[in-house]
Amino acid sequence: MRLRIDLAYDGSAFHGWAAQPGLRTVQGDLEAALGTVLRVPTVSTVCAGRTDTGVHARGQVVHVDVEAIPDLALLARRLNGVLSADLRVRRVVIAPDGFDARFSPLWRRYAYRVCDGVPDPLTRGHVLSWPRLLDVDAMNQASAALLGLRDFAAFCKQREGATTIRTLLALFWVREGDLLTGTVRADAFCHHMVRSLVGCLLAVGEGRRPVGWPAEVLAAAVRDPAVTVVPPHGLTLEEVGYPPDAELAARRDEARTKREPA
Amino acid sequence: MRLRIDLAYDGSAFHGWAAQPGLRTVQGDLEAALGTVLRVPTVSTVCAGRTDTGVHARGQVVHVDVEAIPDLALLARRLNGVLSADLRVRRVVIAPDGFDARFSPLWRRYAYRVCDGVPDPLTRGHVLSWPRLLDVDAMNQASAALLGLRDFAAFCKQREGATTIRTLLALFWVREGDLLTGTVRADAFCHHMVRSLVGCLLAVGEGRRPVGWPAEVLAAAVRDPAVTVVPPHGLTLEEVGYPPDAELAARRDEARTKREPA
Repeated sequence: MRLRIDLAYDGSAFHGWAAQPGLRTVQGDLEAALGTVLRVPTVSTVCAGRTDTGVHARGQVVHVDVEAIPDLALLARRLNGVLSADLRVRRVVIAPDGFDARFSPLWRRYAYRVCDGVPDPLTRGHVLSWPRLLDVDAMNQASAALLGLRDFAAFCKQREGATTIRTLLALFWVREGDLLTGTVRADAFCHHMVRSLVGCLLAVGEGRRPVGWPAEVLAAAVRDPAVTVVPPHGLTLEEVGYPPDAELAARRDEARTKREPA
Repeated sequence: MRLRIDLAYDGSAFHGWAAQPGLRTVQGDLEAALGTVLRVPTVSTVCAGRTDTGVHARGQVVHVDVEAIPDLALLARRLNGVLSADLRVRRVVIAPDGFDARFSPLWRRYAYRVCDGVPDPLTRGHVLSWPRLLDVDAMNQASAALLGLRDFAAFCKQREGATTIRTLLALFWVREGDLLTGTVRADAFCHHMVRSLVGCLLAVGEGRRPVGWPAEVLAAAVRDPAVTVVPPHGLTLEEVGYPPDAELAARRDEARTKREPA
């Protein structure tokens, strides 16, 4: 029996999602809590977005296989009773057939938040403070040129044998006062991709690079040392989109083949 | 020469506004920073709202008298260079004649934020988590009955010789998803007034007290032990409203006479 768990967390005090011996991680905390509440010795979870150290989530999705069906509302309450306040279970449901948190998604949506005025102390944990004014129109123009099915090698930390071809479905910026929110949505992301894209676009926003520069970097398709990876704390995994239940298994098989060829 | 300083702070790590020996306070940090940057041995500041331990501000206003006019933009930058990230100077201007941060305001506006669903870990520092569903319509009905010029003794920590008569100008709640924001605006507030009003209204919201109860408590005009003072971390001083410059001095003299009779 597979459960789907929706999570939110403040990534500040976690060494990212992936369990690592001796370090506090989201996966480590969640699996320990599941072990306690379900009274099982080991639990193995799989997530939709393996967030790095310091990255937050409001819409992380996880699956876990269990022996027996627990009372789901009670399970969520008990998990939140065991977990720290910086990690919350939003809901627990029985996953539909073919559901795989990692391979079934159609897309992941991240938000990157930047303040180019005096930073608000109440949101400083999840908003990057930028010391120079940003031109949101220039950033949006540069962003639009990156959309579509592309090889994002220029923006990714390369991993042996893994493809860096992704479909960037949305990339745009909205200004509210001195807060800029960048929305980034793709079928999947390779390592450091969002933070490299944002670093590239902030260089355009502050006028250090021309509007056409990000598209040039992308076209080169090799890691460009001039692209800065922005700090993790401005980044939040907001939502993961899954297909209708009937298409979950097909989507899972397709994505697995594409991203992890045998 | 008087300066007006606008401040924002995360109150979590401060023992409130007012300087106290051996404790970290907003006034203590600000006066130390001003002393350093202005190169003077002592500085004395006055604020619009003396926030309690754990209460936040986005729109705190302070005045300070200085000998010489510094470069104001540079002063703000230097102060922010010296201050910790949880306390930010939003701007520094030369105060108009008759300006008194404490006595010139026409009103103070506070927000109290409550979440009655699974709390968002990213905002947990300034949003109270409430374990039961809240009826925002009932809370708004009860709130409306408290408006106007009243003796708020029932909601105030009494202080010898000080009046508890205030004009409550606005009190209403807005729900966005599971986040409720209460807006409270009055000419001035006595100690614990906002948090007692909110405690009273949450009892109505969760159905523990009838809609008419807060008005009954108010009418009794004595401190009611059944009214709970809610935790400070949901409370933020959002804005202070001052009259046009020509009316600052008159307003200051009027408010001083009313609130601190000789």
